[in-house]
Amino acid sequence: MSDILRRGRLSKNPGEEMRAYTSSMEADEWIFEADVYVDMAHTLMLHEQEIISADDCSKILFGLLQIKEEGMEMLDFSYEDIHISLESRLIDIIGEEAGGRMHSGRSRNDEVATCIRFALRSELLSMLEDLMKLENALTRLASDHFNTLMPGFTHLQHAQPTTFAHHLTAHADAIERDIFRIISAYGRVNICPLGSAAFASTGFPIDRYTTAERLGFSAPMTNSMDAVSSRDFLIECAAAFSNIMINLSRMAEELILWSSQEFNFIELDDAYASTSSIMPQKKNPDTAELMRGKSGTVVGSLSALLTICKGLPLSYNRDLQEATPHIIKSAHVTAASVRMMTGIMETLTVHEDVMKEKAVEGFTTATELADTMVRDAGIPFRTAHQIVGTLSKTTTTPSLNEIDSVSTEVLGYKLSDKGLTEEAVAGALDPMSNVKRRAVIGGPAPTQMRDDLSDKKKRLSALQKQIWDMDLAVEKALENLTEEVKKAI
Amino acid sequence: MSDILRRGRLSKNPGEEMRAYTSSMEADEWIFEADVYVDMAHTLMLHEQEIISADDCSKILFGLLQIKEEGMEMLDFSYEDIHISLESRLIDIIGEEAGGRMHSGRSRNDEVATCIRFALRSELLSMLEDLMKLENALTRLASDHFNTLMPGFTHLQHAQPTTFAHHLTAHADAIERDIFRIISAYGRVNICPLGSAAFASTGFPIDRYTTAERLGFSAPMTNSMDAVSSRDFLIECAAAFSNIMINLSRMAEELILWSSQEFNFIELDDAYASTSSIMPQKKNPDTAELMRGKSGTVVGSLSALLTICKGLPLSYNRDLQEATPHIIKSAHVTAASVRMMTGIMETLTVHEDVMKEKAVEGFTTATELADTMVRDAGIPFRTAHQIVGTLSKTTTTPSLNEIDSVSTEVLGYKLSDKGLTEEAVAGALDPMSNVKRRAVIGGPAPTQMRDDLSDKKKRLSALQKQIWDMDLAVEKALENLTEEVKKAI
Amino acid sequence: MSDILRRGRLSKNPGEEMRAYTSSMEADEWIFEADVYVDMAHTLMLHEQEIISADDCSKILFGLLQIKEEGMEMLDFSYEDIHISLESRLIDIIGEEAGGRMHSGRSRNDEVATCIRFALRSELLSMLEDLMKLENALTRLASDHFNTLMPGFTHLQHAQPTTFAHHLTAHADAIERDIFRIISAYGRVNICPLGSAAFASTGFPIDRYTTAERLGFSAPMTNSMDAVSSRDFLIECAAAFSNIMINLSRMAEELILWSSQEFNFIELDDAYASTSSIMPQKKNPDTAELMRGKSGTVVGSLSALLTICKGLPLSYNRDLQEATPHIIKSAHVTAASVRMMTGIMETLTVHEDVMKEKAVEGFTTATELADTMVRDAGIPFRTAHQIVGTLSKTTTTPSLNEIDSVSTEVLGYKLSDKGLTEEAVAGALDPMSNVKRRAVIGGPAPTQMRDDLSDKKKRLSALQKQIWDMDLAVEKALENLTEEVKKAI
Amino acid sequence: MSDILRRGRLSKNPGEEMRAYTSSMEADEWIFEADVYVDMAHTLMLHEQEIISADDCSKILFGLLQIKEEGMEMLDFSYEDIHISLESRLIDIIGEEAGGRMHSGRSRNDEVATCIRFALRSELLSMLEDLMKLENALTRLASDHFNTLMPGFTHLQHAQPTTFAHHLTAHADAIERDIFRIISAYGRVNICPLGSAAFASTGFPIDRYTTAERLGFSAPMTNSMDAVSSRDFLIECAAAFSNIMINLSRMAEELILWSSQEFNFIELDDAYASTSSIMPQKKNPDTAELMRGKSGTVVGSLSALLTICKGLPLSYNRDLQEATPHIIKSAHVTAASVRMMTGIMETLTVHEDVMKEKAVEGFTTATELADTMVRDAGIPFRTAHQIVGTLSKTTTTPSLNEIDSVSTEVLGYKLSDKGLTEEAVAGALDPMSNVKRRAVIGGPAPTQMRDDLSDKKKRLSALQKQIWDMDLAVEKALENLTEEVKKAI
Repeated sequence: MSDILRRGRLSKNPGEEMRAYTSSMEADEWIFEADVYVDMAHTLMLHEQEIISADDCSKILFGLLQIKEEGMEMLDFSYEDIHISLESRLIDIIGEEAGGRMHSGRSRNDEVATCIRFALRSELLSMLEDLMKLENALTRLASDHFNTLMPGFTHLQHAQPTTFAHHLTAHADAIERDIFRIISAYGRVNICPLGSAAFASTGFPIDRYTTAERLGFSAPMTNSMDAVSSRDFLIECAAAFSNIMINLSRMAEELILWSSQEFNFIELDDAYASTSSIMPQKKNPDTAELMRGKSGTVVGSLSALLTICKGLPLSYNRDLQEATPHIIKSAHVTAASVRMMTGIMETLTVHEDVMKEKAVEGFTTATELADTMVRDAGIPFRTAHQIVGTLSKTTTTPSLNEIDSVSTEVLGYKLSDKGLTEEAVAGALDPMSNVKRRAVIGGPAPTQMRDDLSDKKKRLSALQKQIWDMDLAVEKALENLTEEVKKAI
Repeated sequence: MSDILRRGRLSKNPGEEMRAYTSSMEADEWIFEADVYVDMAHTLMLHEQEIISADDCSKILFGLLQIKEEGMEMLDFSYEDIHISLESRLIDIIGEEAGGRMHSGRSRNDEVATCIRFALRSELLSMLEDLMKLENALTRLASDHFNTLMPGFTHLQHAQPTTFAHHLTAHADAIERDIFRIISAYGRVNICPLGSAAFASTGFPIDRYTTAERLGFSAPMTNSMDAVSSRDFLIECAAAFSNIMINLSRMAEELILWSSQEFNFIELDDAYASTSSIMPQKKNPDTAELMRGKSGTVVGSLSALLTICKGLPLSYNRDLQEATPHIIKSAHVTAASVRMMTGIMETLTVHEDVMKEKAVEGFTTATELADTMVRDAGIPFRTAHQIVGTLSKTTTTPSLNEIDSVSTEVLGYKLSDKGLTEEAVAGALDPMSNVKRRAVIGGPAPTQMRDDLSDKKKRLSALQKQIWDMDLAVEKALENLTEEVKKAI
Repeated sequence: MSDILRRGRLSKNPGEEMRAYTSSMEADEWIFEADVYVDMAHTLMLHEQEIISADDCSKILFGLLQIKEEGMEMLDFSYEDIHISLESRLIDIIGEEAGGRMHSGRSRNDEVATCIRFALRSELLSMLEDLMKLENALTRLASDHFNTLMPGFTHLQHAQPTTFAHHLTAHADAIERDIFRIISAYGRVNICPLGSAAFASTGFPIDRYTTAERLGFSAPMTNSMDAVSSRDFLIECAAAFSNIMINLSRMAEELILWSSQEFNFIELDDAYASTSSIMPQKKNPDTAELMRGKSGTVVGSLSALLTICKGLPLSYNRDLQEATPHIIKSAHVTAASVRMMTGIMETLTVHEDVMKEKAVEGFTTATELADTMVRDAGIPFRTAHQIVGTLSKTTTTPSLNEIDSVSTEVLGYKLSDKGLTEEAVAGALDPMSNVKRRAVIGGPAPTQMRDDLSDKKKRLSALQKQIWDMDLAVEKALENLTEEVKKAI
Repeated sequence: MSDILRRGRLSKNPGEEMRAYTSSMEADEWIFEADVYVDMAHTLMLHEQEIISADDCSKILFGLLQIKEEGMEMLDFSYEDIHISLESRLIDIIGEEAGGRMHSGRSRNDEVATCIRFALRSELLSMLEDLMKLENALTRLASDHFNTLMPGFTHLQHAQPTTFAHHLTAHADAIERDIFRIISAYGRVNICPLGSAAFASTGFPIDRYTTAERLGFSAPMTNSMDAVSSRDFLIECAAAFSNIMINLSRMAEELILWSSQEFNFIELDDAYASTSSIMPQKKNPDTAELMRGKSGTVVGSLSALLTICKGLPLSYNRDLQEATPHIIKSAHVTAASVRMMTGIMETLTVHEDVMKEKAVEGFTTATELADTMVRDAGIPFRTAHQIVGTLSKTTTTPSLNEIDSVSTEVLGYKLSDKGLTEEAVAGALDPMSNVKRRAVIGGPAPTQMRDDLSDKKKRLSALQKQIWDMDLAVEKALENLTEEVKKAI
């Protein structure tokens, strides 16, 4: 290797360990394709702006196409990064006279920032698809369980009866916010630093609008120093990924709990479980456990990114190279986890009988009983709360007699004298009747859930269209670019 | 204290240390006002929906107004949280017969979630104002320095000349993204969980739309289990705050560097500096150092929030109480830091002469020299890079002769034979001429900067209007609510 | 306030908000006592080294004693920190002629580093006591449950039977490592920076050994620049606290699980539980939930400390001030959590019958059955694993006949022909017999547990002595110092 | 693949993506060697305890030796982890009749915990060597610079003169604490979980002492549930690594500052620098920047580990698998960084003339001037501080006359009347004389530094011996084990 960069200024080459320490080639696989596209768009523009000749342009594009087809393996991995390695390969193919002109009017600083945004954009688009699938899977499963009673928990204690549909939709709503967060972040990712050069832009009469458009970005990033120095978009994305993973860790925790002998609410499909090397009877919810664990990996990436960026002066510092692998890792782990959760939900066995049986254990109907006293006997809620609390020490299915006895102690009179009937008490103590009464927006009443999910489906369908449009805009731009390149050769 | 909650179910009261361990009263100061408003909106609705009588409604509102005027100090701090303490105070004032009815159709779970969103909304709105002021301060300072030359840095090495305006605008652009991130987050904060009760909503015929609207929220949060269990909005806000603080830490780092004897580019106003207890000659940029340090505090809050939420099953768990102080702390530290930075920028002394003198040190014009060779002598950039790199080992102001001598070595011919002139070399080596040539969008050329800042001012003015509208919508709703309450008493 | 520091160098005083932003007075309450002791030790030494006169020494000590008695409230909180506020108060009391001499040969940089180590030392010593109490509580509870069968879990699935003693001792062993970690950290905390002055030590002929000894430190810290700049001891302590909290979060998780209706293994004492504002029947394990949540708070402090220290050049930077509140917070939260857990364990109700009943659910004896086949019929473990795995699909209490039938399928012969008996199968399927066979070191067999706990008690008793010695050494030094001060007045 | 684990209990195999999601094979390369040793030690013991026959023992050991020689590539990577893949390969080689017996009396849970401790032990031992080399390099460089004056900084402002030796030794002392932290952690890593099986130990009469000793561990870990469930040793190590990296980030920050044109104190060797793709004159301190950035990577690993472990119930959960890659990554990055810093220090060019020239800039001698007033004119330090502070507004080299004029203003008399001489003032203003006076322990006076470094060298030599002994103990054990295996075949 005769190093096309170091040959001028530096007299000594780095040792092997230093090379390994400073090289980004491993992470650069992620941006190989992006880099080729960026080079193509830049080269076309250089020619249009009369910075290079038609002939040089044609040669460079020919070389780039060849490199794209050869794939990354043909590059020399002893270089410190892909940009210089790719440029070096180009010069090998078409010579320095033409190849040496490609890097006019730019620097690796704007090049790598553009590549990262290009590659991250793809990750976000495909993650949006994955998130949509997960929300749809949750919604579909919920639609099958409008009437599946289960105990609702607070503090992991049975609290009130609810339905499995209601519980699943809570997670679906959280995922919907995750989708919107990714879309928000996308707007700050999909802008183009190219042409900012080292940080001061360039004296060449380049056209930053053209390259941005050709590469499918919504606009060039304005200030050229900001364009090469800022990595706040990585922090924002890693934070959005962390939010997704924390949401998944909460679902995973429930899947693990519900798979236990004690809960026995569900069973994971064998494809998402494993057994033990020593205990032959075991079926373990490994996928859910790993997902819960992987939330730590993504949180760790966010923490790394924040620490890396803290206290860096402008403009480009080499520390920023260390940021990229963390966004790659966290994007991949998050997307895989979303897909795994979709698979789990699509193949889940639900033990409806167990859920139903447990729905009333732990006096989950106590709130409704208190509410009934308020409505039918006209006493204040706080007083009803005290009466039911006292009853709960000795029974979970109080009779009207028992209620009267406690109310006499607390209030000096019987609630049956104020309008509370046996029938009303029975209604309050029935879990399905409990649930049916909870028909305000967002509540578990089957009729209400049906309405809420119907609204959700409409929203999802609009959202899907929006995401496809984002996707299409990028795809179209890259197709056009490829066409132009082919024409220009 | 006769505990209105524990009297029913639990036979033993907690010890003093346990009380301190579990109480949220300290953090609850932050939501005191919110809680009163929430109670008011809920009470009005209870009456409209015929769940409580006009008389009870009037009494409760009277009590609430009194509590609001008394302030938080009158509450009993031995309760575990403000909601129960406030309800208890209400019952002291107006009796249980009316006061005991306020908590109908809701729970502390939806109440506290609503209060947190209410209080955080205020923080976001005032932080947006603070951020706008900072961006404006940076923009104003930049407008004074279109022609102030300074060395631009990469790797903290002099790289190319730029202007102070260009450097400041890089930071202003970063702050602008921070503003948009807060606005994105605001949309996910300003929705209303009230009426979700413990998590299953309620059998009372409440109207969640009315309360949401009266409290200035954009809509009720749909799924009632999600509404009380989710804290992803806290993570999103803390992440946005962390991004702001990391941006500020980078500015602070520069202020500290630039205040050093070695750089001497600027001097902080005495109001933002301090001296030493032992070294009487010292003037230290303490405010900038503390700001850099406080980025750690905000990052720590984000890390805490993520760890707290990880792996929690639905619905409400008491762990969530521990989340709130972290969002309060991080919001306050971030807002104060933004204001400090604004003050620093508004009072900064800029040593233009020093900056200008350093602008050429370190052969910062080398890139332009290479570009000039490309443009005037037609050689490839990569070859020009090598020639200038070789020259840089011995000189920072190469003559045409020296250039010719190196080019002969590298290329076999003189660049002066290909069109490079003494005049062109002199132009390339002049820093102001360097800067003036960088007139692509985002570049430092004074003409370009003027255009870019003029665009920015237009954007900022539209943004300011948007923020005021957000602000006004909330203010208006609360004013209306107060009016209605007064009428209903 | 006429500022004794700023009056020389700076012409403008900071505004109110800047004062609040930069002041450390709130956190300084933590080091008030430390600061007085440090001043006393320093003053005595200054006199011994003939840097100040006997008379000045006596006056200063008199003033310091008065300040100690008055308490921190008498200090002027408008100063930027306690050191200068305390010195200012001293000068108020005894005049500048004597009081102005106390700060000779030192700086706030070494002073604050010494105070932090002094105060943190106290936190560590009292935390060691708390941890010892927790390990003892766990050990005592374990001693009552050598024969209490329960299901042991992997992947939260029933795996094999074990005892409650065995489970509790696992946690006790983890706490023991936490104790050793705190002791390791203590050695790196209890060294004395005093006399390092701003960072370059001093030209006054001070004696750093004397002050270190008088303040109970094991030695002076050597390099004076390192002594004022390093905060690695804070990171180490916060990491040790985080390890404690993660261990507690795991116990807390189990307490929450075991309190659920589904598990019902235990019940928390009412003093550590709470009820619901809406659901009168609820008893929630709030203390355990908050403890689980508070692990996030301590992890957040560690994260803050790491971010704050990252990338700081030597020597003292004001960023370090921001570190102190995080160590205070994390120490206090950790210690309170340890004490809460001790209380919970000391008052826990254990449902032995439920645990025992569940001990065999889920075919927990499968491993022992496979092992028995290996031992009695001589087949390889991996084959036995397969046979039992196949059996587990249809039964959890296989008869010898059923075993023979599967073994014939897999191996071509009956295990009863190779020596497996009905009796051996029955033994393998009995949970207590299972447990009794696990009599290797660390295993749950009651005899083994008794031995292991007896060893542990011996270790704990030696450890307790070591901690008391550490405690005593500090106490003694401070008593002596107080005596000397009284004599010198 | 006919899966030797899943064939019993589970009917469906996982899909490709699920396999990738759950497999640990990539990280398991790290423990391949460890696993073979663990298998060998376990097999020898099984035979000694008469659990397997001599013949089976011999066959298994033969197979293991072959696997060790073949290397990891021969294993089937479609298995979920190395343990089962290795066992499966063993059975391929020697058949299930013998090979199926190796896993008797243990589980993957204790196996993997043992392997992680085995592999991490190696990392710690080699990191200790690396740290020793770095401290030695710093110490050697310091020894060359006892008289190299430089400005000492606080708040990045010139504060007082010091020497380069003093500054370097500050870092060396910090590294020494890092060494002791790793040694502390080592004691908690080098204990043996083997024989704990799934968590309940085993009914086979195994000998846990023998295997622990053969594998070079100091003892078996006692409680078998703790042994498989705890990962606090990973958190402790990652925290110690983070402390190292934060220390390195501080050195790196200084190297970057000092390499700037503004400071120009040092120059990195070309082998540790790089140039720019666009700016041919640049020489960038990339290695130092990357090191500063990599501190974020290690902090991220710590954060991941804490999040992963938070809230996990006992005993083994699959989440723990996700922990291992973080400890591998953080160990490797830390060790490489330590080695890089050693190389940087060994090849550093020091600009002594620049450092010396800057040593007095910024009135760094002000403290000594104030101290001189205290000593020679007998005024209080706080008053001298005020006088010098006032002088510093107008001069950095005050004459006796100027001093007298200010003292008259402040005190009403001339200091020259109280004994302050021209000579004393000149002495105070001379930086080398300043430094020479700072001869208390830890101070920069060349005589003192010589003594302090001489003490340090003695400590380092003892420390080196201790580390070699730790190293030797492990090496010896593994050699013996290999010998025994060869004999037993």
